[in-house]
Amino acid sequence: MTEYAYETAVDVRLRDVDFMGHVNNAIYATYLEQAREAYFTDVVGQSLVDLDTVLASLEIEYETPIEAGQAVTVGLRVADLGTSSIPIEYELNADGSRAATARSVQVFVDRESGQASPIPPSLRTRLESDPS
Amino acid sequence: MTEYAYETAVDVRLRDVDFMGHVNNAIYATYLEQAREAYFTDVVGQSLVDLDTVLASLEIEYETPIEAGQAVTVGLRVADLGTSSIPIEYELNADGSRAATARSVQVFVDRESGQASPIPPSLRTRLESDPS
Amino acid sequence: MTEYAYETAVDVRLRDVDFMGHVNNAIYATYLEQAREAYFTDVVGQSLVDLDTVLASLEIEYETPIEAGQAVTVGLRVADLGTSSIPIEYELNADGSRAATARSVQVFVDRESGQASPIPPSLRTRLESDPS
Amino acid sequence: MTEYAYETAVDVRLRDVDFMGHVNNAIYATYLEQAREAYFTDVVGQSLVDLDTVLASLEIEYETPIEAGQAVTVGLRVADLGTSSIPIEYELNADGSRAATARSVQVFVDRESGQASPIPPSLRTRLESDPS
Repeated sequence: MTEYAYETAVDVRLRDVDFMGHVNNAIYATYLEQAREAYFTDVVGQSLVDLDTVLASLEIEYETPIEAGQAVTVGLRVADLGTSSIPIEYELNADGSRAATARSVQVFVDRESGQASPIPPSLRTRLESDPS
Repeated sequence: MTEYAYETAVDVRLRDVDFMGHVNNAIYATYLEQAREAYFTDVVGQSLVDLDTVLASLEIEYETPIEAGQAVTVGLRVADLGTSSIPIEYELNADGSRAATARSVQVFVDRESGQASPIPPSLRTRLESDPS
Repeated sequence: MTEYAYETAVDVRLRDVDFMGHVNNAIYATYLEQAREAYFTDVVGQSLVDLDTVLASLEIEYETPIEAGQAVTVGLRVADLGTSSIPIEYELNADGSRAATARSVQVFVDRESGQASPIPPSLRTRLESDPS
Repeated sequence: MTEYAYETAVDVRLRDVDFMGHVNNAIYATYLEQAREAYFTDVVGQSLVDLDTVLASLEIEYETPIEAGQAVTVGLRVADLGTSSIPIEYELNADGSRAATARSVQVFVDRESGQASPIPPSLRTRLESDPS
């Protein structure tokens, strides 16, 4: 996990398990959102609740199923920032083994127009200076 | 929507809406799963509950937010089948406007070994003969 | 179901099913919320999104499990209104058989103070004149 | 919290927050389920996944809203056991203040018949000897 300097734990809930007996595929997206929120709160100092971003894309490769009772961690790193977009790469591990990898792109939007808007300079500085 | 001969409606629940006031990004994955289930039940004649498939990958491009109260439909088509894999392409529409596109790959697995297993011939026949 | 003049259908999602193979107990609360939203939208003409109410209590008796693929309906009726509170009684049916009964109490609150606030007169009139 | 000798922490997810900006009412039922699972795993030594119980009833009184970012704990105690039923009482706290109280009744069932079945003696012994 040296590539993912930022890592956060996610509690697996019984409710996350689906009719197949494993954590449901959609719940991975919730784990990623939770990891983004932890990253923004811990590293950037702001909750996603207070930032005007929308998710533009999400890709997940599911490698091995996650079971109830496993200890899940999400490693993440911010990739090259665009003018308005924040690409993030993830690795989900369950009991220390890789369970999935993922990528997301968030875009800053102007709350009024709903159009893409440049990443605020202070936020850009904090994201670019993050050693993770 | 002529490209997506199979289409199914999904009920948006208040619970699908998140802290941003729109349908949460992870819920799109649930809508896609629900559309797959409807497709397999309607066209193939078998519920996903009874098929030994796992999701291998999922990609979603979010175009416009979905609001509570909108009428959501999911169009889907099965792309070129692999030996074990079923790729599916999707388009989500909200009140008739495109809200997102997506792709997933499901893989047949042997229940005992958990390894990839060929798509059963009868299922392959039904998937390939589906005009949608 | 003559006692419950208002009835609405709820789509069961695969995702609603849990590790036990039945609709998860918490999802019943979501079905009830969805039925309340349908009732307020259809009968009262206002979405819960636009009303300043909070849920004060919820009771559910689970009678028979709900399976994926069943057709679920929720019947509901508003019981005696309090000054600030709207008690509602529910019956959930799956494929025409009673699956659960429930009661909830919603309370109008003043958005600023968070304190209980009288039901607005126009809303009270519509709720009391509803024949269901 | 001296009355609730067993206590477990629950992580609030952004996804738990609804259109009202607070943890959704149905999610409280998920927190309670998660607390039951922790109790059975920690104190009884068995996961709910491996026990043939169904939820018979659930009551929740919502006192103050739970916000994203709050630290939530659930205290619980098993009340007087019936022949087949396990009643449990709960208190949810957010940042140390009571947010809700709840009661549930689980019933042991015979997996084949679906009928109520006596609590297995070894489980009864462990539940009754739990000092919490």
